[in-house]
Amino acid sequence: MTNLQKEDFSKWYIQTIQQADLMDYSPVRGCIIFKPDSYEIWEHIQEEFNRRFKKEGIRNAYFPMLIPESFFTKEADHIEGFAPELPWVTEAAGEILEERLALRPTSETMIGTAFSDWINSYRDLPYEINQWANVFRWEKKTLPFLRTSEFLWQEGHTAHETESEARRRTLRMLTIYKEVVEELLAVPVYEGQKTPSERFAGAVDTFSIESMMKDGKAVQAGTSHYMGTKFAQAFDIKFLNRDNEHVFAHTTSWGVSTRLIGALIMTHGDEQGLVLPPRVAPTQVVLIPVGPWKKNPEIVERLAAIQKELLAKDVRVKLDDTDNSPGYKFNEWELKGVPLRIEFGPRDMENNQVMTKLRDQSEKVAVKLDDLEDYIFTQLDLMQGRLLESAKEMNRANEYTNIDTLEELKAHIEAKKEEGEVPGWVLAGWDGTEESEAKIKEETGFTTRNIPYAPPVLKSKCIVTGEKAKHTVWLARAY
Amino acid sequence: MTNLQKEDFSKWYIQTIQQADLMDYSPVRGCIIFKPDSYEIWEHIQEEFNRRFKKEGIRNAYFPMLIPESFFTKEADHIEGFAPELPWVTEAAGEILEERLALRPTSETMIGTAFSDWINSYRDLPYEINQWANVFRWEKKTLPFLRTSEFLWQEGHTAHETESEARRRTLRMLTIYKEVVEELLAVPVYEGQKTPSERFAGAVDTFSIESMMKDGKAVQAGTSHYMGTKFAQAFDIKFLNRDNEHVFAHTTSWGVSTRLIGALIMTHGDEQGLVLPPRVAPTQVVLIPVGPWKKNPEIVERLAAIQKELLAKDVRVKLDDTDNSPGYKFNEWELKGVPLRIEFGPRDMENNQVMTKLRDQSEKVAVKLDDLEDYIFTQLDLMQGRLLESAKEMNRANEYTNIDTLEELKAHIEAKKEEGEVPGWVLAGWDGTEESEAKIKEETGFTTRNIPYAPPVLKSKCIVTGEKAKHTVWLARAY
Repeated sequence: MTNLQKEDFSKWYIQTIQQADLMDYSPVRGCIIFKPDSYEIWEHIQEEFNRRFKKEGIRNAYFPMLIPESFFTKEADHIEGFAPELPWVTEAAGEILEERLALRPTSETMIGTAFSDWINSYRDLPYEINQWANVFRWEKKTLPFLRTSEFLWQEGHTAHETESEARRRTLRMLTIYKEVVEELLAVPVYEGQKTPSERFAGAVDTFSIESMMKDGKAVQAGTSHYMGTKFAQAFDIKFLNRDNEHVFAHTTSWGVSTRLIGALIMTHGDEQGLVLPPRVAPTQVVLIPVGPWKKNPEIVERLAAIQKELLAKDVRVKLDDTDNSPGYKFNEWELKGVPLRIEFGPRDMENNQVMTKLRDQSEKVAVKLDDLEDYIFTQLDLMQGRLLESAKEMNRANEYTNIDTLEELKAHIEAKKEEGEVPGWVLAGWDGTEESEAKIKEETGFTTRNIPYAPPVLKSKCIVTGEKAKHTVWLARAY
Repeated sequence: MTNLQKEDFSKWYIQTIQQADLMDYSPVRGCIIFKPDSYEIWEHIQEEFNRRFKKEGIRNAYFPMLIPESFFTKEADHIEGFAPELPWVTEAAGEILEERLALRPTSETMIGTAFSDWINSYRDLPYEINQWANVFRWEKKTLPFLRTSEFLWQEGHTAHETESEARRRTLRMLTIYKEVVEELLAVPVYEGQKTPSERFAGAVDTFSIESMMKDGKAVQAGTSHYMGTKFAQAFDIKFLNRDNEHVFAHTTSWGVSTRLIGALIMTHGDEQGLVLPPRVAPTQVVLIPVGPWKKNPEIVERLAAIQKELLAKDVRVKLDDTDNSPGYKFNEWELKGVPLRIEFGPRDMENNQVMTKLRDQSEKVAVKLDDLEDYIFTQLDLMQGRLLESAKEMNRANEYTNIDTLEELKAHIEAKKEEGEVPGWVLAGWDGTEESEAKIKEETGFTTRNIPYAPPVLKSKCIVTGEKAKHTVWLARAY
């Protein structure tokens, strides 16, 4: 056991995701290969969101990836926000294109243009769709899963008759994000509103769920935007309302991406490697023959029978009967974060039992073969809940709510550094000005994460100016 | 009822897919928007293939979309085949790239590079993965679903120890394609081997399933390629074999795309619009209140109750209680190809029954409410099988096996044209030369579709030269 996670979190992260066979680098700058285990985590995330979206009456669709340059220039804030990161197709089939085509960074412009054609009357509203797609943002600094030039995501886009209905949709999606990220990934989140400087390019209001990693840094895990009628005006999304007037629709958009995989790893991983919540683990249970098992073929036969029974009940279970030593196998499957290991050898067979070990527990437990199936279902459920609870505890231990000035914040960061501890998140008063926000970032590297719906404490004074605080905000370093 | 399908099949196709709300054009040349109904058909196709791939032990992964130019030049035939259709990213984030990046037309080069790193020993083999992705081919002539600049597909890539194992995988995937296309889409296919001139760029052997559309033209519905060690040599995919020698792996690739949606429509659609096989129909059953239903709220309540029960049994069912007239609704849902319509009005309520109409049958049938659920499941199953059978009949009626010379073929095409009938497919002898193949195409517009595994007749003489035939091939016009 090393102390790498504690000593050099970044190195631990890169080493873990590579050793656990989740990803590989690509020769193209900032692009990664999602190997089968990370892609399967993404598929479980997709399944759960698809189930929830369907319940909401939101349907999937697919829009072209290439977006003409002229589309972007229609909404001024939008182009300003995305232009610096766009890759461009300028040639195709041996010819220079008349107009450059951007690789989509997000699809508001493409879908806005379509909505303009499709929406004519209040009877067409709400119009609510979602897209699963690859998107591109050519960023300077990249990090596997968390910030890559190409990533996978879902982007929902809706149009509504009224502001209140659009705002309800915006907030409803944030709630769904919170539920799925907490229940499926066991990653606790902080819901709140983004400050104006951190809004999505072109949005009226942006809401986010933010999560705290084990190194105390924040990951923006999902965002939901209320666009007002800004995009409707830019793309001419007008409809005949109930009073027979042509008016602009109110639109929203919302997304989560493959960065959730990064957040999952940085929330639960430990010095031994990944720790995967059972609901998204590609392998939930691994069966390993132990002792002098090769002399008795019945050992592997019994394990194969257990595997078959579990597969029939939709448990994702592997049998590792390779030639490697049990110790090697234990390490490898721990590194991969498999929730439950089951060992079975000649002595266990005599006793009609198996030895079990949960990834987040240190003791092994003997379980009678007759009780095994119940034990597995119960323990996987318990572990799912336990991971969420221990992440919440980790979060609480790293929340600081009694820091009132920039000097105190700087001293806090310094002190934690000296102790070899993470600086965590700091709840602060903010006067609502961009100047104060910029000063916090400049002097501490902390940025406003969001304005929480329900802050644990209401801060009355701005951490920068000492003036009356307009909002209470979470401050943290962020990925 | 019009005769548009018979008189102008292309116009019928474009009009039908637009009116049925399956797609819309995009401002970018040759790109289309997959609206929710067509995207859902694709999702059902994906589900079924994922289920089958998983059974085969093939896992999903995701590789970067952008491919450096230098990758393509490694396999000479491959670059020659794809270069004319590639779109290129030349700038990103305000800078000109040092090396152009292609938008993937297929991922052999990217995945070959990865396999080279990942595969070291025979113990790593077989390495079998699949990717669901968007791909780009900038073609001159495009047609929604069947040939678009951007399309969606799956591409499987495998590496093996031996030729025989790789060839078994190649043919096994073709069998899976045949089964899924016939059982799920009810589109009968013709299995066979492509001629050398129609092979995938860089393959040793290409196999295809081809299907016949109602206008007698062919759609290549899926392909599977055995690459030999050509890509392994180009990308250095070497492994230590059981004799402790470094040798090249044998690779395969195989794919189906969203053109299956086009094939589905052109196989089953009729003058009234789409006809969708129940297993892939986004809406399988539509409930429509009829008669003076608005005066009696119980009508819609009862329909809502039926809907709820069916939804609970995973039937995809809609209730249309809009203000449109029943006649309007009947037409609209027929146009959309919904397999089963259920009408229910005050008189039906008195008789404790509903009136039902299957999309491919002309009579309405009264069904007692108590029997409805059974009726629905039985009839949807029967319809699924009936569609496959009637497509097979259509195929057989348009197969010609008694044409022996090019003159006869030209006369056949001319005669069919005069009769206003489709020229169909022609089974012909071929001497195996490129010259003969080119001549057929030049003089008749027919191309070799494939060399069937089991031709209905073996042709002994080449249709062009009259010499001894090397193969019996299917000839047809193709999309």
